[in-house]
Amino acid sequence: MLTSSDVRIDGGRVMQRLQELACVGRDPRGGLSRFAFTPEHAEACHLVAGWMAEAGLQPFLDPAGNLVGISDRAAALPAIGVGSHLDTVPMAGSFDGALGVVGAVECAQSLRDADRALTRPFAALAFAEEEGNTFGIGCLTSRVLVGELPPDRMACILDRQGRSLAQRIREWACPLPRREAPAIAAYLELHIEQGPRLEADGHQVAAVSAIAGIYRATVTFRGEANHAGTTPMALRRDALWGAAKLILKVRRAALRTGGEAVATVGQIEVTPGSTNVIPGLTRMRVEVRSGAADCLEEIRKTVEVEAERVAAEFGLTAEASPWDRMPPVPLDEGIRSLVMAAAQCRGLGAIEMPSWAGHDAKILAPHVPTGMVFVPSLRGFSHSPHEHTDPKHVAAGVQVLLDTLLAVDRRLAVA
Amino acid sequence: MLTSSDVRIDGGRVMQRLQELACVGRDPRGGLSRFAFTPEHAEACHLVAGWMAEAGLQPFLDPAGNLVGISDRAAALPAIGVGSHLDTVPMAGSFDGALGVVGAVECAQSLRDADRALTRPFAALAFAEEEGNTFGIGCLTSRVLVGELPPDRMACILDRQGRSLAQRIREWACPLPRREAPAIAAYLELHIEQGPRLEADGHQVAAVSAIAGIYRATVTFRGEANHAGTTPMALRRDALWGAAKLILKVRRAALRTGGEAVATVGQIEVTPGSTNVIPGLTRMRVEVRSGAADCLEEIRKTVEVEAERVAAEFGLTAEASPWDRMPPVPLDEGIRSLVMAAAQCRGLGAIEMPSWAGHDAKILAPHVPTGMVFVPSLRGFSHSPHEHTDPKHVAAGVQVLLDTLLAVDRRLAVA
Repeated sequence: MLTSSDVRIDGGRVMQRLQELACVGRDPRGGLSRFAFTPEHAEACHLVAGWMAEAGLQPFLDPAGNLVGISDRAAALPAIGVGSHLDTVPMAGSFDGALGVVGAVECAQSLRDADRALTRPFAALAFAEEEGNTFGIGCLTSRVLVGELPPDRMACILDRQGRSLAQRIREWACPLPRREAPAIAAYLELHIEQGPRLEADGHQVAAVSAIAGIYRATVTFRGEANHAGTTPMALRRDALWGAAKLILKVRRAALRTGGEAVATVGQIEVTPGSTNVIPGLTRMRVEVRSGAADCLEEIRKTVEVEAERVAAEFGLTAEASPWDRMPPVPLDEGIRSLVMAAAQCRGLGAIEMPSWAGHDAKILAPHVPTGMVFVPSLRGFSHSPHEHTDPKHVAAGVQVLLDTLLAVDRRLAVA
Repeated sequence: MLTSSDVRIDGGRVMQRLQELACVGRDPRGGLSRFAFTPEHAEACHLVAGWMAEAGLQPFLDPAGNLVGISDRAAALPAIGVGSHLDTVPMAGSFDGALGVVGAVECAQSLRDADRALTRPFAALAFAEEEGNTFGIGCLTSRVLVGELPPDRMACILDRQGRSLAQRIREWACPLPRREAPAIAAYLELHIEQGPRLEADGHQVAAVSAIAGIYRATVTFRGEANHAGTTPMALRRDALWGAAKLILKVRRAALRTGGEAVATVGQIEVTPGSTNVIPGLTRMRVEVRSGAADCLEEIRKTVEVEAERVAAEFGLTAEASPWDRMPPVPLDEGIRSLVMAAAQCRGLGAIEMPSWAGHDAKILAPHVPTGMVFVPSLRGFSHSPHEHTDPKHVAAGVQVLLDTLLAVDRRLAVA
């Protein structure tokens, strides 16, 4: 039977550091706007590097501009990585990304305070570009870490001003040593849920089962624009009728999965878009997410088949053009069990659930055993200055992260 | 029993004159753009005034800038007015308005050719601003004719450059005499249907029963914008769900009237309008038209009641703000019967139907007995360079117009 470790994290210190980090990159419009490879990002790295050093870690930048704090530079074995990202969306809250970084440093600090060492090297990871605000690609710098983006590709990924990723990293005024990235044996990430489920169900933590896959398509219905007064109802080919019916069908398909999938139509455009003209064309964007590959596939089919069916019913043509398709990424089952066990030992209410948003863990998972811990988001707010997590949930999450880290370290030592 | 008159109109002449008129105000982008009180409008008046004179009418401009051709200036009795308008929408076809004006002149010309006179004075009317392109108000100059817009109001109605209606008329370089408008005893208007019904059902003419009333409202659904990934389906308040369901309900309500009403949602706007954000707000514009007041009222109720019901179903709030409400305007039943009888005597297939679009006849009808004759529109095209009516339908329509004019004249003489 598993027992919880005797090492205790310091929840007060974590909250204090989150607040300090939230002062770097304040946006006058509200919240934080801290984008990769800016002076604010450098300032955040400087702050976190100081905490890393205090915790006995050696801070440096890897070739992707990720801040790494390693426990033992000379170690032969791959490190256990723990972390998240330092960049934010525009006008962001102060928990998304930051919690996982501060939590990783807290693991090292509380181990040091308790005079405990891991059998494996430890690497606190603070990824540089996860939100995709600078280069338009999510989880960009963790992709570099795992070798998905070789150096020659880094010269071809451009920001809005046409500067390449390689150039931005090279020219970035961040006065930290630059070294090769460490080899990673496993990866753990603590993150806020960014949804309302944990709070609504009264749980304190979650072990993430998978990162939801995504299907995004543009569905275009074509009918015939015509006079809204003189065209009899029976002779109309109103493209908006097709869109309206498909919106409701997609909703029902997602509801039928009983929580396994979500589907959203967030954009719709009607042409010509005049009060007294029958819509001749509508274009809408459908997004489906699910942690279960079969659910995702089922709703994809519903979108494409029902678009045709609805078009036939109203005398329209339909075209569904997928433009984003990513299968779900399952996280490591072993680590998931360790997270659940750690929560149980601490007497915390925990569930397993998919992550509906993307994370760097999604990039690491195909390469090394990867796990994620979620803590509740107040009313589900995220990507907003309203983002908040109760300090007792923050402390619980970091404690579970540390307990899981110790358990993973024991497993790797045995293996 | 009614018999058709022995006076025959000249269909070839009508087509010839329509083509001549279609050369005035050609738009380089296609079709005609002939707006009120422009040099092109003056040129069109000059052309039509010449035909009026040829037909024995005395042409002049009334105080609203309408071109009038009167058979007997000194007559004590009010005239029978026949006509339509000379202005067009941008990139218009060559039948909308022009047919009714040329048809009116043809009535006078063929009576003169046959050496026949009416008992009443006759006034060919070519209204100046019906489409509302210059001042943003439909049927503007027929409103002046019937006294709806007294001279002091004419100084307050402004075009986009801030020039008043009174000023535009005063400064308009149209070298025709200017006189008081004639008193009108009855009004007849020949017009293209602007819809596909006559063609689809194989009829040659229609007697218009009423000008459809209109109800226009903006319906706003408010829900909650939220993350399209992390928000479970069951906790969503997606404003687009409400809009989609109402669109389909409004459609069914209009279909249930069996052709008595039409309803259109031609505009919809989603906020924030991002693929990965649940719509927090949708705003749509609903337009309902019907020639029957009870149908119009029933669908208005459906829109407003169902908006509330749908909102309750999806956890939204709904607000329906009507911004345009006009009751249907019934046309004179006696004249309608005369149109049907005239068509029957000529062996033409005819039906009674409402006009789904507005016309100057709508303004005249509350003041004097008013009737309208419709002829088929090729595939229902209107307000488009594709607008077309077969010459045999044009001839049939003008003949029915003349026969009706003679019948109305007989009635007025008896009364």
